Amino acid sequence: MSNDECIGSAPFDWIIIAMSSLDTVFQDLVIANRILAKEDVVDAYGHVSVRHPDDPSCFLIARSLAPELVAGDDIVELGLDGQPVGDEKRTLYLERFIHAAIFEARPDVMAVVHAHAEDTLAFGIASATKLRPVIHSGSFIGTEVPVWDIADNFGDTNLLVTNMEQGRDLAKCLGSNNVALMRGHGFASAGRSLIEVVRMSVYLPRNARTLMRAKQLGGTIKYLSQGEINARNRGYSPYSTETWRAWEYWASKAGCGDMLTRPDDVRSRVPEA
Amino acid sequence: MSNDECIGSAPFDWIIIAMSSLDTVFQDLVIANRILAKEDVVDAYGHVSVRHPDDPSCFLIARSLAPELVAGDDIVELGLDGQPVGDEKRTLYLERFIHAAIFEARPDVMAVVHAHAEDTLAFGIASATKLRPVIHSGSFIGTEVPVWDIADNFGDTNLLVTNMEQGRDLAKCLGSNNVALMRGHGFASAGRSLIEVVRMSVYLPRNARTLMRAKQLGGTIKYLSQGEINARNRGYSPYSTETWRAWEYWASKAGCGDMLTRPDDVRSRVPEA
Amino acid sequence: MSNDECIGSAPFDWIIIAMSSLDTVFQDLVIANRILAKEDVVDAYGHVSVRHPDDPSCFLIARSLAPELVAGDDIVELGLDGQPVGDEKRTLYLERFIHAAIFEARPDVMAVVHAHAEDTLAFGIASATKLRPVIHSGSFIGTEVPVWDIADNFGDTNLLVTNMEQGRDLAKCLGSNNVALMRGHGFASAGRSLIEVVRMSVYLPRNARTLMRAKQLGGTIKYLSQGEINARNRGYSPYSTETWRAWEYWASKAGCGDMLTRPDDVRSRVPEA
Amino acid sequence: MSNDECIGSAPFDWIIIAMSSLDTVFQDLVIANRILAKEDVVDAYGHVSVRHPDDPSCFLIARSLAPELVAGDDIVELGLDGQPVGDEKRTLYLERFIHAAIFEARPDVMAVVHAHAEDTLAFGIASATKLRPVIHSGSFIGTEVPVWDIADNFGDTNLLVTNMEQGRDLAKCLGSNNVALMRGHGFASAGRSLIEVVRMSVYLPRNARTLMRAKQLGGTIKYLSQGEINARNRGYSPYSTETWRAWEYWASKAGCGDMLTRPDDVRSRVPEA
Repeated sequence: MSNDECIGSAPFDWIIIAMSSLDTVFQDLVIANRILAKEDVVDAYGHVSVRHPDDPSCFLIARSLAPELVAGDDIVELGLDGQPVGDEKRTLYLERFIHAAIFEARPDVMAVVHAHAEDTLAFGIASATKLRPVIHSGSFIGTEVPVWDIADNFGDTNLLVTNMEQGRDLAKCLGSNNVALMRGHGFASAGRSLIEVVRMSVYLPRNARTLMRAKQLGGTIKYLSQGEINARNRGYSPYSTETWRAWEYWASKAGCGDMLTRPDDVRSRVPEA
Repeated sequence: MSNDECIGSAPFDWIIIAMSSLDTVFQDLVIANRILAKEDVVDAYGHVSVRHPDDPSCFLIARSLAPELVAGDDIVELGLDGQPVGDEKRTLYLERFIHAAIFEARPDVMAVVHAHAEDTLAFGIASATKLRPVIHSGSFIGTEVPVWDIADNFGDTNLLVTNMEQGRDLAKCLGSNNVALMRGHGFASAGRSLIEVVRMSVYLPRNARTLMRAKQLGGTIKYLSQGEINARNRGYSPYSTETWRAWEYWASKAGCGDMLTRPDDVRSRVPEA
Repeated sequence: MSNDECIGSAPFDWIIIAMSSLDTVFQDLVIANRILAKEDVVDAYGHVSVRHPDDPSCFLIARSLAPELVAGDDIVELGLDGQPVGDEKRTLYLERFIHAAIFEARPDVMAVVHAHAEDTLAFGIASATKLRPVIHSGSFIGTEVPVWDIADNFGDTNLLVTNMEQGRDLAKCLGSNNVALMRGHGFASAGRSLIEVVRMSVYLPRNARTLMRAKQLGGTIKYLSQGEINARNRGYSPYSTETWRAWEYWASKAGCGDMLTRPDDVRSRVPEA
Repeated sequence: MSNDECIGSAPFDWIIIAMSSLDTVFQDLVIANRILAKEDVVDAYGHVSVRHPDDPSCFLIARSLAPELVAGDDIVELGLDGQPVGDEKRTLYLERFIHAAIFEARPDVMAVVHAHAEDTLAFGIASATKLRPVIHSGSFIGTEVPVWDIADNFGDTNLLVTNMEQGRDLAKCLGSNNVALMRGHGFASAGRSLIEVVRMSVYLPRNARTLMRAKQLGGTIKYLSQGEINARNRGYSPYSTETWRAWEYWASKAGCGDMLTRPDDVRSRVPEA
């Protein structure tokens, strides 16, 4: 994934999502919240957002609420400055600037997750081992996973990203990568679709655990090669049967299988051109 | 948090709790019991207490019962000597003196947890690694986490804190800190509110696991700085939206979301002065 | 616990159980099966037995069935040779000889568990670290936990204990201890009551994990002293409020809280003498 | 297990399955899918197949669907080239060639699992520790567990086995063994019956974890001897009471205990000859 893959050159899959009704996007965002909670990526904290399908200058995210409890009417619309677009009186996530700044810096990014998934945390604080893909399902975290330390430019803080300046610093560290670890805090991940960013966020801790265990077993560790990472990225499509299979399964496990909108349902709803 | 933050200088949040009805405190204590059980901080053993909202010389705690099974009428009222205030015939926790002695020594403390959470235990018995905050959610355990060894002053015991003398020795070791590990046994944590002490007790094992894994990954480990710990303490408020979000989520997971009293409900119940 | 504590010198608690109706023992054995399954001590394999309350020369154990599925009418009565006492046509556990041989060798033992609890297995195959009590709840495994290797006296087998000769070899290795690890296989534990042996079997893996993690943290490890182990044994009573609290909690978690017979129910059922 | 145990010399147990109705095989395959999901061997990905009971030149496997969601009418019939036997319009697993190639190379194999069970992954990428049986329930993985690296013969791929050439390369690496690890991806296991391959796949990660922990405890590790592995294989029968006990238990845990066909039901259904 690179900045070249901006909206102008969006692949077919994205077109479908863009044409889908806003209702479907809301519903998918609720599903994403529930999946991330069920799969232990988020707990009371952590959030997921999606760029507005009709207006790339704003994004959708829940109001301040634990992801597992999010329903459709908890979703609010924020601008790329992290402020509500309409008249929104409900309390918002303090760290919504993570999302705002990444959407601002990366027109190719359609969805963002911020979370504290436990098994990623050690990689943000131990200097000796870099987090890199070692399993095929972890390939989407990309070749390099930079570690952002808020203290580098902001000194002693409460570690939270609570304004655009901090968010932009994080987005700069993320660069064109898919994931940045946040020292002593968690990670931010950015994807080309909601399904992609959820999947990446679920498999990120699994990749982390596998690398940790391999270090304990000892000897040389075989990481995925750059060619393998590229090959997997080339083959990835958020609405392929293979990707859908995971989304369907996780939604079912999270108790919201009934909220699923199958891609072909979306297709059939698209007016014939 | 220091001893200076005694009741006389209690912040606004605490005033609210102090003025709330006793019923709400009972209900919150039941919720705290269920959350600690669901989040694997306690099992059949371990307990949580809260200082009496109307009388700082006594505290509320369940009778001898597994926390998951505690209901409102299982709560008893004990004095700072660990003995029942009224005519109480039911069996009490053997280790209620942990709570009594900490409430006695620390007027700033409003709630106490004692538990055996598994992932804290190794830090009480291995000499090479000190437990310290490495993740932002672990900051509330404070800069220093002393390890109390009952054998130092009491020789060979069954390791339980079964009288005031032992409880006071533990409280002395705790000093003005928020958590003390108890060698070969568990930990005691002390907070400015029930929500704070529950939250600290849930994130304590997570912080412990992260540090353990970081040690395995190797190299230099970045701990939270003193300035970061301070910044987080300054920003903490037990009834902020952010703190409430976790309490609400955990209560919901523990199956007692219907027992929640929202802080604004409390506020509306406070007679206008 | 030593061989001196034989039936003749049984403490008051045991008298109660001995006088309780056979129905209660059957029900408690069903509860024990369910608890061990729920707490991940057994899976499809592993079993628990109790000496017959009226006849010390035989014991009760389920027919060949996964412990979670055991109900009252799955319980069979076997002699100390591991053979059915009555006319029993149902298939029996291949490894019932573990129980038979321990009951035969140890008149003080009233209940036996054999299981493959995962976190005990590594201690049976790695030579560098001996399993010993490091936490107070693990004290009941006793000062020494011998490792029995079936290969020492029986060469290449399928590792199962399928006759009295093998069972007696294991019982000999167990000696007057409470637990023996079985190399590449699991463990056998022996207690003075069903509640005691279940509790010991639940906390054995927890003690093992704590020791494993302490080894990773490094430095000197503080084990429980002999004096502490003795102090805990002296204070132990299977029908104390504290012990009952765990049994009640685990039964409730395992979905069979309704099958519990409270000790005072037992007492009230004992004919007044 | 060796190639000598081909269909012609199938033991009695297999005859029974072969004579059982196709319905029973379909139902058992659904159960196998559900068990593997419940026991965390597969998630959205991974699959299990069984050779057709009436025609060894084809096999049964689900259409592209998460194993937990598989029902009877999701099962399709594929030939040993991995292509559908009949007119099948539904999307198939991309990696069905793993199954096809193993069934083609190994007439003795009646069932195959491919999965990404997390705790096996580290052994595919760390060079210092070989996966070998250390616990009796892990004996069926066999003396040697080869590691197949798709990069050796196919260079940079997306790591998936998507054609017969790749499948045959994997099957060649598997040889006459029961399990091959797939570097950075997962494993393939092959058994003489559906029950056997499911059981092996459930205990494979447990054996891996035990070995990992033993490495951490340090010192010499006692692996199962070749004689012990042989003794266990000799005693194994997929429809013995002991094996059935696990299948029944796992099916019950996975919520499909009602779909079980007891071996004696099968026997009674076999026409008397």
